[in-house]
Order: sequence, then structure tokens, then C-alpha cells
Amino acid sequence: MSHGKQFTLQTHGTGANGWKIDFVLAELGLEYESKLLDFNQQDHKAPEYTNYNPNGRIPALIDHSNNDFVVWESNAIMLYLVEKYDTEHKISVSDSNDSNEKFEQLQWLFFQASGQGPYFGQAVWFMGSHSEKLLSAIERYQKETIRVLSVLDGVLSKREWLVGGKCTIADLSFIPWSHWALRSILKDYPGLDVAKDYPAFYRWHFAMLARESVAGIVAAREAALITSGIWR
Amino acid sequence: MSHGKQFTLQTHGTGANGWKIDFVLAELGLEYESKLLDFNQQDHKAPEYTNYNPNGRIPALIDHSNNDFVVWESNAIMLYLVEKYDTEHKISVSDSNDSNEKFEQLQWLFFQASGQGPYFGQAVWFMGSHSEKLLSAIERYQKETIRVLSVLDGVLSKREWLVGGKCTIADLSFIPWSHWALRSILKDYPGLDVAKDYPAFYRWHFAMLARESVAGIVAAREAALITSGIWR
Repeated sequence: MSHGKQFTLQTHGTGANGWKIDFVLAELGLEYESKLLDFNQQDHKAPEYTNYNPNGRIPALIDHSNNDFVVWESNAIMLYLVEKYDTEHKISVSDSNDSNEKFEQLQWLFFQASGQGPYFGQAVWFMGSHSEKLLSAIERYQKETIRVLSVLDGVLSKREWLVGGKCTIADLSFIPWSHWALRSILKDYPGLDVAKDYPAFYRWHFAMLARESVAGIVAAREAALITSGIWR
Repeated sequence: MSHGKQFTLQTHGTGANGWKIDFVLAELGLEYESKLLDFNQQDHKAPEYTNYNPNGRIPALIDHSNNDFVVWESNAIMLYLVEKYDTEHKISVSDSNDSNEKFEQLQWLFFQASGQGPYFGQAVWFMGSHSEKLLSAIERYQKETIRVLSVLDGVLSKREWLVGGKCTIADLSFIPWSHWALRSILKDYPGLDVAKDYPAFYRWHFAMLARESVAGIVAAREAALITSGIWR
């Protein structure tokens, strides 16, 4: 790659799952170049991209220092980055084989990938992109969004972070879709006050947003989402 | 636990994600006792279960030989079992740090967890459980089911297994929802012939079903689904 940096990140200006990789690369101080795909031009379905990721979704990461190894699925990329480059465990738990924490970290990453992302994403789809207004579908996914916040709130009312007593990729992985929930999915939900109803979740989410590496990235994505008229 | 076996598996008679753990435990010849939760009795939302898994979904695994360590999220459980007990790598790739295959195995497990399970699951929901018949929602998820089959077919037309040149947990993780697709979601889909249209996917799926450890488990679940009137 001509940019000379260690990584190329194939991502999108507003797509939620790409943020996660920005967080980890920034936390670990790794040098990378982002390539923004244009979904309107179907960049993500063109062979140039599906050669990297046959699923045609963002993000995908290319590690030029590892023979241009390509990895996709945002949470697999997070795990790749910490296992290779977070040897001091700044944002990850120990990966020693006699520790159970690595499996708890995995468990929360899978809950994010299967239980948060897809459901919050379906709420966004039915609220803004579906061919017709289906109120009972919107209601289903708004309620599931609230249910997931309540699960997280219950756990975080008893401890500060999900695993290992510190902020790890397991926590960071939840930021993008949690932010979508607050800024869009549940913004006008009648009778709901997330700060009051789910205080432990709320404290945790904004503690992460206050991190230097996270704040700048979220502010830039937020600006892009407002400029493109998706958020207000 | 009074049953004296190494593991207790908290699962459900027909719920798809529980099958995965049966496959892995059977492949590795590990002794376990299944505890079937009754969703009609809200067993999965009762404190007795949410103390194990705050998300209130199946499966959850308790390892009595590891101080009753509890892990939930089916794909995290699969990884736990192979990292601890598949030291000969019968159904998993090497976990050495200089191998890229472990990250490819993770990537496919995350694709299953985020891209296959939730979408196929939404198809099943809107086809059978939603409060009203929403044809455009059913169409959305049937089409996404076909898209995922086509992604898998494209990859498997160039290689026999997803990673490492052998059947691993990455492949096995796709069985339950692929079987739901064939037996239910796409059973009557007009003009679709999965065996002819996606031959590499079809070959791969049925090669796995022919494994001794898998065949008996799928047959038992299939019988339960037919008895309960969910499949025909």
C-alpha cells in the first residue's frame, strides 16, 4: 500500500460497526489509513471489496505487517488487534489459558454481535429504511433495544466494567449501537428516561465516551450523521 | 451437581442455538447432563437461570471441573470447549499465536452469530410468531436468508471447509439455522431449489449432517420440532 501505514481499514463514514476498529487502533496508538466505501456506488458489493470480505459488509482490516492478512467481522478484528498488539493488556484481559476472563470477554463480544447489533440495527431499518411503515415491527425492535439496555444495566449496577475490572474491547464494542439507541432509536420513546431508568448503563456508556481515544471518533461520526440528515 | 458428569448444559428442547453445544460435547466425547428449560413457564427469565445468564437466553454451560465456571452465548461456549478440551484440534484450528487461522475461525463464528442466526431467526419470528402477518417483513428476512446461503456457497465452491482444511466449530456453528432455512424458512419459497442453486452450500451442510455426532442430535431435534407442530 502506498500510504506506508501499518493497516488499511475498509469502512464507511457513518456505518456503526466501523467505529469499533477506530477505537481500538486509537487506544493502541497504531497507524492506519481508512478507506471509506460508498454504499450508494455499491462499493461494498464490488469484487474489489468482496475479495476481502465475501459478506460485502464493513469493516475489513488489512494488516500490511502480517503479509496483508485480511480479517473481517468487527469483533473478530478487535480480538485480532488486541491479541497481536495489546501485549500489555491495556484494553483486553489476559489471554493465558488458565484464565476464565478471556472466555467472559468472548461471551460479551458475542452478546454484542448477536444480541445488541442486529436488534438495534433492525430498529433503525424499520424506523427509517423499510418500504412501508410497520408499527408493530418498530415496536418489537424498540422494546428489544430497551430489554438489552436493561440486561446491561443489571450487570453494570453490580460492577464497573463487564470483565476484568477495567474497560476492555468487550465494553468498547457496545458503544456504537448504544449511541444509536440514545440518539435515534429511543430518542422520542414515550415515558422513557434512560439516564434515570438505566443509570448504571448510562454511567458506563458516558464514561467510555469521555475517553480521549473515543471522544474524537464519536464526535466525527456524529457530525457525519447529522450532516447526512440521519440524526438530528 | 448430583448427576456426577463434568458439565451441565442449560438448554431447550427445540431452540436452535443449544444444538451447537451438543455437537461439540459429542465430538469431543465429553460427559454432560442437559437441563431443558420450559419457555412456557418462563424458566429462562427466572432468577435461578438469569443468575447464570443475565440475558435470559439459552444455552449456558456449567463446567463442574472448573469450579462451576459458567459461560453463555453459544459460540463463546464452543470456543471455551475447544480451547480447554480439544487439545488435539479434532474440530478446531491451532491456537498458536503466530497462526492466522484462529482469527479466521473467529471471523466465521462472528459471521454466524451476527449475520446468520439473527436474520434467520427474524424470518422464523415473522413467519410464525408475530402478532400480525407482515408480508414485506417476511420477504425481507427470506431474502436475507438466501443472501447468506449465497455468501457461504461462493466461499465453499472454492474450498471444502471454511477454515483450516477440515471441519471445525466454525462450520458446525452454521448447522442449526441452515437446517431451519431448509426445513422451514425457504421450504416453499417460489422458484428456489437450494440443492441446485447453491450446490456447494448444500454439499457442505449435508456432509456435516452425516457425521455420527451430528446425525443423532439433529434427528432428535427434528423429531421434537415435528411433534410440537413447528415443522412438518
